[in-house]
Amino acid sequence: MSHMLDEIHEQPEAIKKLIAAERESIKKLAEEIKNRGINLAVFAARGTSDNAATYGKYIFEIVNGMPTSLAAPSVFTLYNARPNLENSLVIGISQSGQAADVIECLQRSKELGALTVAITNEAGSSITKAADYTILCHAGPERSVAATKTYTTTLAAIALLSATLAGREDLINGLMATPAQITEVLKSCEATIADRAERYRYMEECFVLARGISRATAFEAGLKLAETNYVTVEPFSSSDFLHGPIAIVDEGAPCFLYAPQGPGFDSMMDIARRLEKKGAELIVISDSAEILSMATTRIAIPVKVDDLLAPIIYIVVGQLFAQYLASTRGLDPDHPRGLSKVTITR
Amino acid sequence: MSHMLDEIHEQPEAIKKLIAAERESIKKLAEEIKNRGINLAVFAARGTSDNAATYGKYIFEIVNGMPTSLAAPSVFTLYNARPNLENSLVIGISQSGQAADVIECLQRSKELGALTVAITNEAGSSITKAADYTILCHAGPERSVAATKTYTTTLAAIALLSATLAGREDLINGLMATPAQITEVLKSCEATIADRAERYRYMEECFVLARGISRATAFEAGLKLAETNYVTVEPFSSSDFLHGPIAIVDEGAPCFLYAPQGPGFDSMMDIARRLEKKGAELIVISDSAEILSMATTRIAIPVKVDDLLAPIIYIVVGQLFAQYLASTRGLDPDHPRGLSKVTITR
Repeated sequence: MSHMLDEIHEQPEAIKKLIAAERESIKKLAEEIKNRGINLAVFAARGTSDNAATYGKYIFEIVNGMPTSLAAPSVFTLYNARPNLENSLVIGISQSGQAADVIECLQRSKELGALTVAITNEAGSSITKAADYTILCHAGPERSVAATKTYTTTLAAIALLSATLAGREDLINGLMATPAQITEVLKSCEATIADRAERYRYMEECFVLARGISRATAFEAGLKLAETNYVTVEPFSSSDFLHGPIAIVDEGAPCFLYAPQGPGFDSMMDIARRLEKKGAELIVISDSAEILSMATTRIAIPVKVDDLLAPIIYIVVGQLFAQYLASTRGLDPDHPRGLSKVTITR
Repeated sequence: MSHMLDEIHEQPEAIKKLIAAERESIKKLAEEIKNRGINLAVFAARGTSDNAATYGKYIFEIVNGMPTSLAAPSVFTLYNARPNLENSLVIGISQSGQAADVIECLQRSKELGALTVAITNEAGSSITKAADYTILCHAGPERSVAATKTYTTTLAAIALLSATLAGREDLINGLMATPAQITEVLKSCEATIADRAERYRYMEECFVLARGISRATAFEAGLKLAETNYVTVEPFSSSDFLHGPIAIVDEGAPCFLYAPQGPGFDSMMDIARRLEKKGAELIVISDSAEILSMATTRIAIPVKVDDLLAPIIYIVVGQLFAQYLASTRGLDPDHPRGLSKVTITR
């Protein structure tokens, strides 16, 4: 077994721990956000954490009505910009707590008046010292270079903050159900994925598509494949996909469609039909029999989940796919060539 | 000659026209932005226009200190979110003026209190009716499906608004110099690009890299290649590139580096060195002899330009490369298969 596979399986426990351990301090943070009249959120992150930030943008805007921006750290680190960040919440994400540009982003934001939060898996790391508040992922040491449990716990932390701030008990309850749902998905889908991965042994490039908040899933699932299998991956929001990239899909081109039922589902059905006409190979991950029936490889998700929480559940399939495809290719998913666990850019 | 090549050559005139025709109304808009105490900008766009929006995010944050977000239109169109947009400036970009989701984004933003602006090439189009202000690109009809002059005029419109709002006469003067600089670049680089394109006749995939505000150039140059040549393109900010994707660069892999001298240059030199070690094939577009000397294909930019305006100049090389590579391959850049000029997503 790889560390990656172990860590995929540790996710239900890790999310449970995170919710139990951070619930009270997230309540306190939510109070301060309200008291300070914060009306803008900014996420600063790189790599996998950047996909978590994309999730954060959607859920903050949808659930909290708070305009949310993804920071371009170089605006601070290269250009020394001084945006007015009073009334802003700036959330830096770094699983290692060492991402230099994210840390600089938090430090500068604090000077410029922002309320700052660090989300990290490393207690006491540099990023925690730069922020007013820290939310710890409680995922335990992550040994695989390809991040899995730090990603889903980060999503859970963001969802918990968003739901707490909005007083959305339904979402908090939904979030508390996700560990058991991930366990269900692992039980129900792992063998299928392990089996189907073989078909993609010689796949050199692929498309990964999703719509709405699941855009985060498309990008993160794509990143996992690229990191562990050296596959050329093109992840797209299905709406952007229609603005050009669909032109390059050839017959047989593998297209992963993450299509939970919800607001983005009709759009994914539309994409599936167009890709079917082009003779593309569809790998569909969905809880809908309708769209699954169009696929060559069908990963049926056995649980119903709020669309806003679907990214926490559906990415597990992407992680498993990356893991088993790497096994099929004789690759070590824990140690991708050319990558180190901690990347420091300035 | 293709329409695309004609339109590439029309860019100096188009930018001149835009500046002359829109300068006064942009001054008025800048006044209203100041008077209303706007402290947040949001861009809504798709496809090529989305790359213009990326440029807008950087220049607004760097020059105006205004936190800037790229809208996820589905937040409105799929999720019916109601973010608080008082004190917000929302800029929708659509060259055709018909992008349904961008228009809906503007309409909803107006209801939610935002000051709204449309940037479009079509006077009287639907988007102009949805916005408080319209900035017209004055680029004349664009016949090629691959957008060129509407992209650079949109960048010029955004730069003019940003510089006017900040009272940056130096930037306005720099902007007024860009038409002549593009003419210089066309004169000096076109033959080289036409000649060098042949080497990439059978290129199937490539990387396109840049740093800082030139990230917009990497993504737009990548989109042009993908649209007109059906090449698999992976565009990256060089900082994101180090967080994973660099692992998949093999010996001989073509990497386009857009590297104007400026704040991001050292980072591009670092990337160039790492790629050189991996034996990648470097195609470098720069005004620096140092980084050009590391390349197999050297596109020397004969003009010095403010880093903030470099995207207006450097993208012309990306457009020419897409055009001449398509010619070399016997493809029609004006009518890419599977693409239409106007894409409407909801």
